[in-house]
Amino acid sequence: MSVTLEDIQAAAKAIEGQVERTPLRRSRTLSQITGADVWIKFENLQFTAAFKERGALNRLLNLTNAERAAGVIAMSAGNHAQGVAYHAQRLGIPATIVMPKGTPFVKIEHTRNFGAKVIIRGETLDGANAYARELEKEQGLTFIHPFDDRHVIAGQGTIGLEIMEDLDDFDVMPIPVGGGGLISGIAAAVKARKPHVSIIGVEPTMYPSLSAELRGEEAHVGGATIAEGIAVKKVGALTGELCRQLVDDVVLVDESQLERAITLYCTVEKSVAEGAGAAGLAALLAEPERFKGRKVVLVLCGGNIDTRLLSSVLTRSLVREKRLSSIRIMGSDQPGLLAKVSQIIGDEGANIIEVAHNRIALDVPAKGAEFDIMIETRDALHTQEVIDALTREGFPPRTQT
Amino acid sequence: MSVTLEDIQAAAKAIEGQVERTPLRRSRTLSQITGADVWIKFENLQFTAAFKERGALNRLLNLTNAERAAGVIAMSAGNHAQGVAYHAQRLGIPATIVMPKGTPFVKIEHTRNFGAKVIIRGETLDGANAYARELEKEQGLTFIHPFDDRHVIAGQGTIGLEIMEDLDDFDVMPIPVGGGGLISGIAAAVKARKPHVSIIGVEPTMYPSLSAELRGEEAHVGGATIAEGIAVKKVGALTGELCRQLVDDVVLVDESQLERAITLYCTVEKSVAEGAGAAGLAALLAEPERFKGRKVVLVLCGGNIDTRLLSSVLTRSLVREKRLSSIRIMGSDQPGLLAKVSQIIGDEGANIIEVAHNRIALDVPAKGAEFDIMIETRDALHTQEVIDALTREGFPPRTQT
Repeated sequence: MSVTLEDIQAAAKAIEGQVERTPLRRSRTLSQITGADVWIKFENLQFTAAFKERGALNRLLNLTNAERAAGVIAMSAGNHAQGVAYHAQRLGIPATIVMPKGTPFVKIEHTRNFGAKVIIRGETLDGANAYARELEKEQGLTFIHPFDDRHVIAGQGTIGLEIMEDLDDFDVMPIPVGGGGLISGIAAAVKARKPHVSIIGVEPTMYPSLSAELRGEEAHVGGATIAEGIAVKKVGALTGELCRQLVDDVVLVDESQLERAITLYCTVEKSVAEGAGAAGLAALLAEPERFKGRKVVLVLCGGNIDTRLLSSVLTRSLVREKRLSSIRIMGSDQPGLLAKVSQIIGDEGANIIEVAHNRIALDVPAKGAEFDIMIETRDALHTQEVIDALTREGFPPRTQT
Repeated sequence: MSVTLEDIQAAAKAIEGQVERTPLRRSRTLSQITGADVWIKFENLQFTAAFKERGALNRLLNLTNAERAAGVIAMSAGNHAQGVAYHAQRLGIPATIVMPKGTPFVKIEHTRNFGAKVIIRGETLDGANAYARELEKEQGLTFIHPFDDRHVIAGQGTIGLEIMEDLDDFDVMPIPVGGGGLISGIAAAVKARKPHVSIIGVEPTMYPSLSAELRGEEAHVGGATIAEGIAVKKVGALTGELCRQLVDDVVLVDESQLERAITLYCTVEKSVAEGAGAAGLAALLAEPERFKGRKVVLVLCGGNIDTRLLSSVLTRSLVREKRLSSIRIMGSDQPGLLAKVSQIIGDEGANIIEVAHNRIALDVPAKGAEFDIMIETRDALHTQEVIDALTREGFPPRTQT
């Protein structure tokens, strides 16, 4: 095995006190909702809000003095960039980070604030990566791979050791998979001590790279998943080998399950998860029967979600629960129509959020009026009560969403 | 003193193991942002996501056997309702909760799920309260006051004991004040052991009830604050007396400071705070000079914020940071205008979120067109770059927000 329990124990000793010893907590409410016995490792409480620090730091601590002096380079638009930059700064190692064009400014700024030299280059991650590998050679820097590196994998594996210290036994771990560093490290630690624990990879349906790898096929990947942190085209050579030996199965999760998982972390656990960070919980929503009655440990591996995206996910969750609905009302275009309709909605205790008029669509009679009214209700039942009341009063709405 | 350190120590012993021993963590980033040395007690990690459980449970544990058998009653539209209902169910005590009309369904349902009998009565909190006091007498129930009760106050004070166990010393605690139960309990614990610690009440500007009380004036209160959990018209008799003895000063926070504090908890700490829960941090934003360089302990006392409200606060924060802006473009109403404008915005790397046409406003020439375009940018500087580019190309926008 290219990464052993001893490697991971050495990593734990090396990084101790330099990363957060994150808490593991049972969630009674998520256990009730999913039917599993749910425990959560809160890796979003790392300083940079993601587990990536562990592997990056362990890699940096294994540099020779000459390598330290020459400096390191990494390519990432996300959590790995911050993990490398933050710990390189702490250790006094010069760091260069290549990020692709279009990287959100806030991530560039965070990385720069850690003293790294940030270079924006390449239209895609591949382009940025190619440039980073050029600089590695030209400038004699050490490339810190985001996942395909035994010191990085061993660093991520320390999460497994901490979980086993905190929890006597457990049955199954659904672990988010991008390049496979997190799952390889944790599996190497957990399987060495508890071979009966089932290790399940979790991938977005748009990026089934490990699923394909385990079947020996080429992966068909692509698309704008909300879990961009694990939107990786291909697992690594080292991580692929470890996964073939240690991973029991893979669960695919779709975008709506990822969104529901982000919402549940926010509303139930009062904790912010990014898409990739919520993937483990999404797996419980995707295949509840697989996990029912079992003791499940989730790794909430990152909390760096764009503010507008989080806001949008939360609003969409209300639409999904039918607490926000858009209804369409047709009527004659006469004074007082909106007043009447608003009155009925208000009397039912619902809240009007937005009104849009549509007079020029051809399916509206020339003398007719059409409103799209966004209403907020207590729940789906309440929405139906509002619709019933409007129908009774002669304004039967068409529900749209 | 009506509540002593001994009362609080007894409460701590009584409730131990039945409520969460919540973590206290230092926030490096919030320290950097505020200039203070910021520590946070995460009371939003209680099972019902608020500190209210401590006081409610301690009160329940001090009932006589006869009182337990007869049952309890409480009035609350929020966290106190859930705290009483949850622990009454655990202890096998019948509980009745009166909630005013208009209480969000999700809160009614949560309280009902804890086995409480929920009665919706009264147009306001006062009305609901009056009805609860009637039932108290009619049915021989024990009324569990949300704050003006020495056992409740002692229960909340256990937060102070835990903080002193976890942190050697500190300078100041800004504590959210509604009825004054939380601040009275914590102050009684902390001042007994560390009289040099400054205890500062924090109130929304719309509800300065303790400020008025300490000046011996009538409070002018009212309005829809985002911190509805501390929108209380008058502090209690017991809590008022304790505050006069123990509270050093009061800081008022406005709505925008409360919104910024909620956003910072979400984006920096990855933790969900309700308005009242974020009030302590809002005080640091309101009066940075007062806290600069001092070791400050915040109590993030609750995380029950409505999903739509949180979503809206997060979106508004982007407007505040000028990452979302609405710009108005005027031009001739000819084919291709929107295409040209969109092209310029896209070339600058900004994202168009929404376009609204306005053709019938009188300040638009009859043959003119007006668009309101909502754009998303990386930051305020980037927004300015987009505006400059549009101006250069002959479409000088009017910025609205």
